[in-house]
Amino acid sequence: MSALFQRVAVIGVGLIGSSMARAMRKHGLAGEIVGCARSAETRAKVLELGLADRCEADPAAAVAGADLVVLATPVGAYEAVARAMEKALAPDAIVTDVGSVKQAVIRDVGPYLPEGVHFVPGHPIAGTEHSGPEAGFAELFEQRWCILTPPAGTDAAATEKVVRLWRAFGSRVEIMDAGHHDKVLAITSHLPHLIAYTIVGTATGLEQSEQSEVVRYSAGGFRDFTRIAASDPVMWRDVFLNNREAVLEMLQRFTEDLTALQRAIRWGEGETLEQHFRKTREIRRGIVEAKQAGSFDPREPDKKV
Amino acid sequence: MSALFQRVAVIGVGLIGSSMARAMRKHGLAGEIVGCARSAETRAKVLELGLADRCEADPAAAVAGADLVVLATPVGAYEAVARAMEKALAPDAIVTDVGSVKQAVIRDVGPYLPEGVHFVPGHPIAGTEHSGPEAGFAELFEQRWCILTPPAGTDAAATEKVVRLWRAFGSRVEIMDAGHHDKVLAITSHLPHLIAYTIVGTATGLEQSEQSEVVRYSAGGFRDFTRIAASDPVMWRDVFLNNREAVLEMLQRFTEDLTALQRAIRWGEGETLEQHFRKTREIRRGIVEAKQAGSFDPREPDKKV
Repeated sequence: MSALFQRVAVIGVGLIGSSMARAMRKHGLAGEIVGCARSAETRAKVLELGLADRCEADPAAAVAGADLVVLATPVGAYEAVARAMEKALAPDAIVTDVGSVKQAVIRDVGPYLPEGVHFVPGHPIAGTEHSGPEAGFAELFEQRWCILTPPAGTDAAATEKVVRLWRAFGSRVEIMDAGHHDKVLAITSHLPHLIAYTIVGTATGLEQSEQSEVVRYSAGGFRDFTRIAASDPVMWRDVFLNNREAVLEMLQRFTEDLTALQRAIRWGEGETLEQHFRKTREIRRGIVEAKQAGSFDPREPDKKV
Repeated sequence: MSALFQRVAVIGVGLIGSSMARAMRKHGLAGEIVGCARSAETRAKVLELGLADRCEADPAAAVAGADLVVLATPVGAYEAVARAMEKALAPDAIVTDVGSVKQAVIRDVGPYLPEGVHFVPGHPIAGTEHSGPEAGFAELFEQRWCILTPPAGTDAAATEKVVRLWRAFGSRVEIMDAGHHDKVLAITSHLPHLIAYTIVGTATGLEQSEQSEVVRYSAGGFRDFTRIAASDPVMWRDVFLNNREAVLEMLQRFTEDLTALQRAIRWGEGETLEQHFRKTREIRRGIVEAKQAGSFDPREPDKKV
């Protein structure tokens, strides 16, 4: 049986790109894998780890002859990559991506794709706080959701091939509108990251003597935030810049709710606090029942994948 | 060899109280354990689980003849418990507690302790999001910090006995001033909980259709918050009411920092965002090096204890 794709170009071989390369190898989904990385150091690492058959600096060289192109750089780099690869894309190639925002990706990449090339944007809801090609592993996507947001009119057969890829990785696939994706992820992912980055930053603003105590007593709740706030800075910068409206809208709601609790603390309104705290238990139960609380990477017991 | 304490009264047999009872049994630290719980249901559960030799409804009956009394109810109930047990305390008894705030505890309990009774307030930095006597386990405190805040003039021998108890549980013990404790914990524990409760609450305010998607895609970061926000509502109500000033001060700093990031998002200031996100990685490294990120409860792979 031949592989699902003959030649796959992975543009950006970080945590997600390298995990996809590993998973494609593991499941025999690609005849050939071509990596693409800007830095010579990363290209050497990619070859050393055996993640790709070759690794190019130029997106055009990487995508030539590929029937699948995966954009896996921070989303802020997509437009430049799209511009660079535009002329080299094979007719009928499928282009997909793994970015955490989807409307901006369609806006930035879409215009550069020639007639006949199929664009199936995607977003695997999986990751760890580690970055770089060595951080990836083939099992990262198992039992995780992958959301695809093909624009209206996308070739159904192309979408179906991308669905098959993710299912082969062990993911559950959902197809939705890009705008809806961006709203849902603003609350489930983008705002939590922004808040975690903020509170960890607030702690770094404390006096030096207090900082070491913050580290020591982090098991009280703070630790969970530091894990999230250790995620890739460039990737997250680009997420916030490219999902501005949905993030600001959710942030506004969050701030209003926080202000209400702040007021209840100031005025000693115990009942308001207790009622609020009771309500939030329900949503946790929903998550435990949906089994989204489960998965665990045995190689890193501290980390929930 | 005789046990460290002849009779221990555990007032409030929830997650922490029941874990202490189990750990005392496991390590042979108590000749006799007497529980105390308001509800008949909890008392029956305590006996059924073998957590205590007997379980009383009245604090006075529970503490009679005890050489160690552990307060492990929500801190808002401490004053009523102190008042109820005042007359029944054995001369020379040691009273300790496990509350997450320490100044308010000294304020509420101190005045009711007769001359000769020793007060050694304590706070184990350990817990899970589960509540009740069945949620406890003997290993909860292993490799966790326990902070003791004996007021000036506390009998050194009494403090030393409480230190020995926690060390026997496998904890690392630190002695500090109650006011300092309350400040440090405001940022490492109280504020993270308040924020987690808030964002999960914000999500429950979304439309019904969006809520199910929040659950489904929670692996993007939100899930960590829901775990924290599933913690005991009454316990946390009391924490916020009793560490009001330190929490409001940290909340103010957090809000200022969040507003600055919000502004950077609105105005597209990528460099500000990236610089901030880079800074927070450092504190995570400190925590990983301090091994506060490590421990893991094998019975619940989803949970970091």
